Amino acid sequence: MNHEADGQTVRHGAFEVSGFRVAAAMSGMRYKNRLDCALIVSETPAMAAGVFTRNRFCAAPVILCKEHLEATGGTARAVLINAGIANACTGEEGLRQARWSARKTASLLTVEPEQVLVASTGVIGPQLRLEFLESVLPQLVAGLRPNGWADASAAIMTTDTVPKTAWSRTTLMGSPVTCGGMAKGSGMIAPDMATMLAFLATDARVTSDVLAYWLTESVNRSFNRITVDGDTSTNDTALILANGAAAHPVIADPLSPEGQRFGALLTAVCVDLAQQIVRDGEGATKFVAVLVRGAKSRQRAAQVARTVAQSPLVKTALFGQDANWGRVVAAAGRAGVDFDPNRVSLYFDEVCIFRNGQPVQDETLEEKASAVLRQKDIRMTLDLGEGAEEDTVYTCDFSYDYVKINADYRS
Amino acid sequence: MNHEADGQTVRHGAFEVSGFRVAAAMSGMRYKNRLDCALIVSETPAMAAGVFTRNRFCAAPVILCKEHLEATGGTARAVLINAGIANACTGEEGLRQARWSARKTASLLTVEPEQVLVASTGVIGPQLRLEFLESVLPQLVAGLRPNGWADASAAIMTTDTVPKTAWSRTTLMGSPVTCGGMAKGSGMIAPDMATMLAFLATDARVTSDVLAYWLTESVNRSFNRITVDGDTSTNDTALILANGAAAHPVIADPLSPEGQRFGALLTAVCVDLAQQIVRDGEGATKFVAVLVRGAKSRQRAAQVARTVAQSPLVKTALFGQDANWGRVVAAAGRAGVDFDPNRVSLYFDEVCIFRNGQPVQDETLEEKASAVLRQKDIRMTLDLGEGAEEDTVYTCDFSYDYVKINADYRS
Repeated sequence: MNHEADGQTVRHGAFEVSGFRVAAAMSGMRYKNRLDCALIVSETPAMAAGVFTRNRFCAAPVILCKEHLEATGGTARAVLINAGIANACTGEEGLRQARWSARKTASLLTVEPEQVLVASTGVIGPQLRLEFLESVLPQLVAGLRPNGWADASAAIMTTDTVPKTAWSRTTLMGSPVTCGGMAKGSGMIAPDMATMLAFLATDARVTSDVLAYWLTESVNRSFNRITVDGDTSTNDTALILANGAAAHPVIADPLSPEGQRFGALLTAVCVDLAQQIVRDGEGATKFVAVLVRGAKSRQRAAQVARTVAQSPLVKTALFGQDANWGRVVAAAGRAGVDFDPNRVSLYFDEVCIFRNGQPVQDETLEEKASAVLRQKDIRMTLDLGEGAEEDTVYTCDFSYDYVKINADYRS
Repeated sequence: MNHEADGQTVRHGAFEVSGFRVAAAMSGMRYKNRLDCALIVSETPAMAAGVFTRNRFCAAPVILCKEHLEATGGTARAVLINAGIANACTGEEGLRQARWSARKTASLLTVEPEQVLVASTGVIGPQLRLEFLESVLPQLVAGLRPNGWADASAAIMTTDTVPKTAWSRTTLMGSPVTCGGMAKGSGMIAPDMATMLAFLATDARVTSDVLAYWLTESVNRSFNRITVDGDTSTNDTALILANGAAAHPVIADPLSPEGQRFGALLTAVCVDLAQQIVRDGEGATKFVAVLVRGAKSRQRAAQVARTVAQSPLVKTALFGQDANWGRVVAAAGRAGVDFDPNRVSLYFDEVCIFRNGQPVQDETLEEKASAVLRQKDIRMTLDLGEGAEEDTVYTCDFSYDYVKINADYRS
């Protein structure tokens, strides 16, 4: 499956990134008879950058990653990930266990402990079970191979129903460059606890500053467009390693033409992974792009789009295949943006159902809009009629299954 | 049924407020074979105040009420309410129809049009059907009686399953004073479109400034504690009329001892009505008070309490009767308040399940907490351990029926 994002073709099939090896294994720490641990290793020292949760309850692996990236000035050799136990709200002991995991991995790889980053997802509260990790780590190291991403993407799943990988290629100063990675998360539909993890790898040659700049930008345009600013779980993490295996000269300016080409590559992969997360939303039956255009600023557009995309009443109406423009405009009206309601128009795909603050009077419109609502992929466009800026937030509908999954599952 | 709020006993049975008459009738404008219109009339000129939605899409009746209260300097004789059609997103024609309704009512009551306030709730988009209103208005006027509140509270319902009235008495400078009223709304569970209407009447003698001051305060402590600030529908309205039929001297200072007694009376009635709205939340099976204490400021406490009370994952866990402290603390952690996670403790009723940033290690606790979760009324207490301020937000759980009601119902 191919996907166009920012003019960059993104693919979902098997891939490799030069100089990276990846493995997955079963530790049995909490889930039984499934892959639940993954390891990503760069054969050579790599630049590294991370974007992390802003939740006040910040899990031990997040604290460790920040410390290690700070200590190394933004370099790393490996990332160890486990699914099942989040190592969050685990106090000093949890941090000690995260440090132990990094140290143990480093020793097996013969690298410095600070060169290992860790990430966890799963139930919060319990401590990791180190005996399980200890016994699986040698298997992980032994299993490292260039094409291990598919298994690794399955190993990091929790309530996800499908593994998520994406990759893309570009040319930087004549050299082919690859960026690929994997993500897990059950999406927009449960933004406040659905831990989002993303791990990217590239052979581009960039400074750690360029890497950090473009990771932040890419996350803002992708993973932060499927959830609310600050609306993050205890463990949310996006990490990227860039090992410079490609042949081009080092890119040191993020806004140079080559820096921007690298940014477009990374953003395209992140947007694709983010959309995969929404499509796999807990109980989701529809994928909905909420585009707000005609805004005075991109920030205003994003604020309105987020409020609409998060409204439980809009999301239940989508599940009910109801072209309920009233709920959409009422959600927009409480977004805290002082637009003029008399200039607002709303479209479901190309069908304009609400224009200049009032429903369009046309008996056939409701049926046309309902036909759009029966689709699996829907674009909702809200035009504020006040400017030229726009932004899009991706969401899904709110179904019986969402309640079922979240009432029954202790996550 | 009696209820203690702020040390003031609030009752739910039949009541009258001196000098007020109330009626209900069936217009058939949208709902068939049920009461759908109500009229409240003060026999003498009354002080009046209102608190309204902050939604940018502000319905025609809200615009009219603001205009009339401004024009009269805060006085009114009557309030006309209809359920079924909200008269929102109806443009100039909608405003014209709201004005017509007030004028027609005023003419039948032989008062000035500016002395009539109007409120609507129901589907947004369609125009009112004035022919139905015109034919029902004489019935409403003919039906006015002191004990008409019960019928009126049934007439203003939309997705509500029970009518909501409350009243209380106090003594101001030796004179008995009554405050009573009614409300509709389907509660916290759907804050972004569940129109909340509340209509209060009192025979207290207060200036319009005192009335406006205490209505705003009371709404902040009640209806605004079951929903998010600004998270209002197109039609949300709270109105109060004070006709001064009681014998005490006029209260002109809201913060005088007598002013505060009046405020406590009004607040108690509003808190009781607000709690009734939560209990009647769409699909709700549980009533949950989220108390945040030990905060540096009341504002910080309220912000954390609101975020927890609104979290879909907390609300689905409540429906699942799962003592899922992880979701509660993770929601608190993203509230945008920079508390120290290591000082946070959480209680379900009296059971402390999380202390100083970590789950309490006691095998029997989970069962004790689960027993609390099986109750219909639950108190969740989150102690931030940073100060002495507190605030409470009331919420309910998130059930299959919530999705069903909102996927099927065009509101």
